[in-house]
Amino acid sequence: MNGKYSSYLDNLIKKLSSLPGIGPKSASRLAFHILKMHPDEVTGLSRAITDLKENIRTCGVCGGISEGEVCGICVDPSRDRSMVCVVEDARDILIIESTGGFKGLYHSLNGLLSPLDGIGPEDLSITGLVERCRSGGVSEIILALNPTMEGDATSLYLARVIAGTGVRVTRIAHGLPVGADLEFADGATIAKSIEGRVSM
Amino acid sequence: MNGKYSSYLDNLIKKLSSLPGIGPKSASRLAFHILKMHPDEVTGLSRAITDLKENIRTCGVCGGISEGEVCGICVDPSRDRSMVCVVEDARDILIIESTGGFKGLYHSLNGLLSPLDGIGPEDLSITGLVERCRSGGVSEIILALNPTMEGDATSLYLARVIAGTGVRVTRIAHGLPVGADLEFADGATIAKSIEGRVSM
Repeated sequence: MNGKYSSYLDNLIKKLSSLPGIGPKSASRLAFHILKMHPDEVTGLSRAITDLKENIRTCGVCGGISEGEVCGICVDPSRDRSMVCVVEDARDILIIESTGGFKGLYHSLNGLLSPLDGIGPEDLSITGLVERCRSGGVSEIILALNPTMEGDATSLYLARVIAGTGVRVTRIAHGLPVGADLEFADGATIAKSIEGRVSM
Repeated sequence: MNGKYSSYLDNLIKKLSSLPGIGPKSASRLAFHILKMHPDEVTGLSRAITDLKENIRTCGVCGGISEGEVCGICVDPSRDRSMVCVVEDARDILIIESTGGFKGLYHSLNGLLSPLDGIGPEDLSITGLVERCRSGGVSEIILALNPTMEGDATSLYLARVIAGTGVRVTRIAHGLPVGADLEFADGATIAKSIEGRVSM
């Protein structure tokens, strides 16, 4: 390693290692895989990276990713415009979309409240959300933030802020995952699932 | 997902998912990370990928990776030219080099014998290895192949082929990893470590 072997290899391994979830060993495996790939495939991968960065921007309405001024979901006439699902970031929109179970609109906060990291309400896309509530047409805000300390704090904050607009605020259910076993669930999850019980 | 959201995003996620060790979820996480990176960093990553592919070739002597006709290790006058360490592929050279414990030369077979996959001796860089043995100057061949069925079969085959050249053939030791506990070692490893015992 240490620069002597090939600066091109060292450079790519260093760059790949800086990506989330990729350590030096995976980076080295990837670099050697790239060496074995067909040149056209390598060019394709390299192009796909720059293409993404150059062509994707933030949707002016929901804060999700978009190829134009406003994203495909926000302009889709078949979506239910009365429900807005609030998520932590744009990636969560894709995750919920992939389930196909939600037909409303989205709003990405682009983060969560975290006083310890100095992230306050003004750092998140909260003003835009309140404006969407006030502009009419929205009857329910569904908070779909992760059940962490920051997620819960942000949910509570939003519920209070949105209450003033008269729009109903709900939160996605927290409980036992489908297929899970009570025996292996943690206490907090079991407590949440009892607290959030529904009649049958 | 399903193409409707952004073709650029779908394209990159598909290409990243095809890399070893990267599933659809990691690919999506990486793509969103790339969206958040500085444009210069993104260009740098994209360039590093094509630069590697365009500038790296196979060393004409050892089969490792090289920026020129012959790699930096093969031309390094400080290396011990009497020992050649035989590895499965170019990446293993980097792994051994990173330990700094070996100062001889290398030879990459570019694979292992695997009759089930139709890989025979003619598919590996064995002729080149035998030539290096015959050309004089080499006194020991160290086989550093993984202790798998294919690795062991290839080691046995090479030992027989190289025996004819009069060069000594050794194999790296297989046994208990440093820091490991007998209690958790598998039977085959313990058997190998007893078989390969050394006097103190």
